[in-house]
Amino acid sequence: MKILVLNSGSSSLKYQLIDADTEDVLARGIAERIAVKGGGGKVTHEASPVGRFEVTGDMADHDEAIRRVFDLLTDPEKGAVSSVREISAVGHRVVHGGEKFVESTIVNEEILSEIEKMSTLAPLHNPPNLEGIRACIRLMPGVPQVAVFDTAFHATMPDYAYTYALPYNYYSDYRVRRYGFHGTSHRYVAGEAQQLLKERGLDLASTKIITCHLGNGCSITAIVGGKVVDTSMGMTPAEGLMMGTRGGDIDPGILVYLAREHNATPDEIDELINKRSGLLGVSGVSSDMRDVQKAAAEGSSRAQLALAMFCYRIKKYIGAYAAAMGGLDAIVFTGGIGENSSEIRASVCDGLEFLGVKLDPDKNNYPFEGDASSAVTADITTDASLVKVFVIRTNEERMIARETAEVVRKSGVEARR
Amino acid sequence: MKILVLNSGSSSLKYQLIDADTEDVLARGIAERIAVKGGGGKVTHEASPVGRFEVTGDMADHDEAIRRVFDLLTDPEKGAVSSVREISAVGHRVVHGGEKFVESTIVNEEILSEIEKMSTLAPLHNPPNLEGIRACIRLMPGVPQVAVFDTAFHATMPDYAYTYALPYNYYSDYRVRRYGFHGTSHRYVAGEAQQLLKERGLDLASTKIITCHLGNGCSITAIVGGKVVDTSMGMTPAEGLMMGTRGGDIDPGILVYLAREHNATPDEIDELINKRSGLLGVSGVSSDMRDVQKAAAEGSSRAQLALAMFCYRIKKYIGAYAAAMGGLDAIVFTGGIGENSSEIRASVCDGLEFLGVKLDPDKNNYPFEGDASSAVTADITTDASLVKVFVIRTNEERMIARETAEVVRKSGVEARR
Repeated sequence: MKILVLNSGSSSLKYQLIDADTEDVLARGIAERIAVKGGGGKVTHEASPVGRFEVTGDMADHDEAIRRVFDLLTDPEKGAVSSVREISAVGHRVVHGGEKFVESTIVNEEILSEIEKMSTLAPLHNPPNLEGIRACIRLMPGVPQVAVFDTAFHATMPDYAYTYALPYNYYSDYRVRRYGFHGTSHRYVAGEAQQLLKERGLDLASTKIITCHLGNGCSITAIVGGKVVDTSMGMTPAEGLMMGTRGGDIDPGILVYLAREHNATPDEIDELINKRSGLLGVSGVSSDMRDVQKAAAEGSSRAQLALAMFCYRIKKYIGAYAAAMGGLDAIVFTGGIGENSSEIRASVCDGLEFLGVKLDPDKNNYPFEGDASSAVTADITTDASLVKVFVIRTNEERMIARETAEVVRKSGVEARR
Repeated sequence: MKILVLNSGSSSLKYQLIDADTEDVLARGIAERIAVKGGGGKVTHEASPVGRFEVTGDMADHDEAIRRVFDLLTDPEKGAVSSVREISAVGHRVVHGGEKFVESTIVNEEILSEIEKMSTLAPLHNPPNLEGIRACIRLMPGVPQVAVFDTAFHATMPDYAYTYALPYNYYSDYRVRRYGFHGTSHRYVAGEAQQLLKERGLDLASTKIITCHLGNGCSITAIVGGKVVDTSMGMTPAEGLMMGTRGGDIDPGILVYLAREHNATPDEIDELINKRSGLLGVSGVSSDMRDVQKAAAEGSSRAQLALAMFCYRIKKYIGAYAAAMGGLDAIVFTGGIGENSSEIRASVCDGLEFLGVKLDPDKNNYPFEGDASSAVTADITTDASLVKVFVIRTNEERMIARETAEVVRKSGVEARR
């Protein structure tokens, strides 16, 4: 079963065509500057054996971008399938499923309008996700379109973990609560970690795992027996860890102070906490961890502070989640930073020996960095370490393809051939 | 040396006269409804052997309230001293010392104006604190007035713990950072806990203690070798644990959402997070833990949720701070809830066995509740518990008297006799 996986942003569209049976990636690419004035639109496409190449040309909307992608996927020389009809289903990343969508779902008009309602919870993400779905419905009628929600994996959190200590009607009337994000990534790496723990003889029903997704956005999740019990992002992706440009946890009194003493408007505060804070705000250098590390090594005290804060906050969450779960079997590092920075992993784990964490410095220097052919999972602890620390390369597209194939199989609805 | 300890609020004034040498309380009381229109002003005064009694009568301002207190302290029958001149110094609780005041200080006009500047950081607390100091300067010229800051004990935090991940100029230009509060209480109980650990043979230079001050306001502090390394309240007392009416930690994106979607003004958000949230907001019953516990026992699901959240958040902070310190020797419970609720203590510690915490249920039922004559410290763990859990009755007034006496002694400035 061939599954097209789409991640549709406001001006970009990432895609992978995956054979759900073998989990091979048949083709992948990204369309950029969709509906952006001033030109520069292009699609970067990659399929073996042709390799990577670019097709330039502006795209007026998501329909045109997807048509361009279809042309590439079916190109007799550079494509991966002979006809779009070989695609059995499309799996769409949708950021916010709210309380309603706790698992992946084949969309219809009713479901689309429900997802649309979630847009107040994710005003930047859900609308472009929906544009991608609507374009596919128009361009490939009859083919199941599956929404895979970033929030769904977190739906198992208990109420005492997802409720904020606000007047209760904010939850009952407006669904203000913790939802969590990056669910597809946390689910994927937690599943991989479960397998590694199973090989060590642990009972999968009670494994206690903390997954650290450290990319440009960062979040951390506590998972008992495969079910999420807590996660650091909240109703929005602004809460929790320090990120590239997001500040994460902050005294709410500071936001009141900024509004009152600095006359900051809601839009300005939004931009401040989401776009100008985090690594960028503290270091003054960059939102990219590699730049911050470089500046720190060259002596920038603010970059050094940013690094120390970044790691300290992850370390505190690991302690908090171990306490939430009543123990800990494994920590997983994933995402661009988690997979590639042995320095960050070492700094986070430094001082966690009392929990039973013993990093092996040699194993931690495993050359994930830039080495696409390196193993996708590694245990970086000593044999004596009671708590295992894994580096696992995340694969959200594979997870979306799996979920999509499963939903389609369960539903009995397959695309007409 | 006799020290008058004053805690001056906007309409109330709490006082204790303490013999700094014996630490005996010679008299204590509270003046209420100062400068409040509509009558009802009174002072409740207590001194042995006369016991407690009330004097009614309105007080136009803090000067008049303090004069009334002096009359009671020097009353030939009901008083504790023959003249106000027996008072060697006054120790004043001051909430916010900012970055400037990292220890207790004898005030002069220059220092008063510095404290005044901190009022943007604590607009509700510093101004009435200053009124009390100014009244004493007027009424007892030449007597040293010592400011003891709620923030000072936390001044040892490292930068990576006190910096928020905002653009750095918010710190460098406006001193937006974590300060922490309840410092006098945390300092007092940490000192007591240090003594208990010393008796067990621990090296005081490296003890790792977490102090939980759980009253109407709640905060939690990580203390290594007697020095604070992190604390849950931030630039304001709104951050951290769930409290009677404060919500503590919350996704900052929710505040943006409330401002944008519900048109909440800064004042409304301030009132929401500080006055209408926490136990009160979630339970809908009360901000008083005893009422919430009663409602929970009677089946209120919202009260049960509020209790579960309250304990869960403390548990997570304990884990986080153990990770921050790289281990844990003792947890201290103090404040009205911490000292009196065995149920809360048990619920917080449940699941922390992996850290080495083993509560002894019998010892945990130690009858602190309502029993003023019960011991002021108790170890509520089994002998085998690697981490000790202490219940310690806090005594901020004693701590302020100690600090005041020490500052006066060091300065060489004593009141003229």
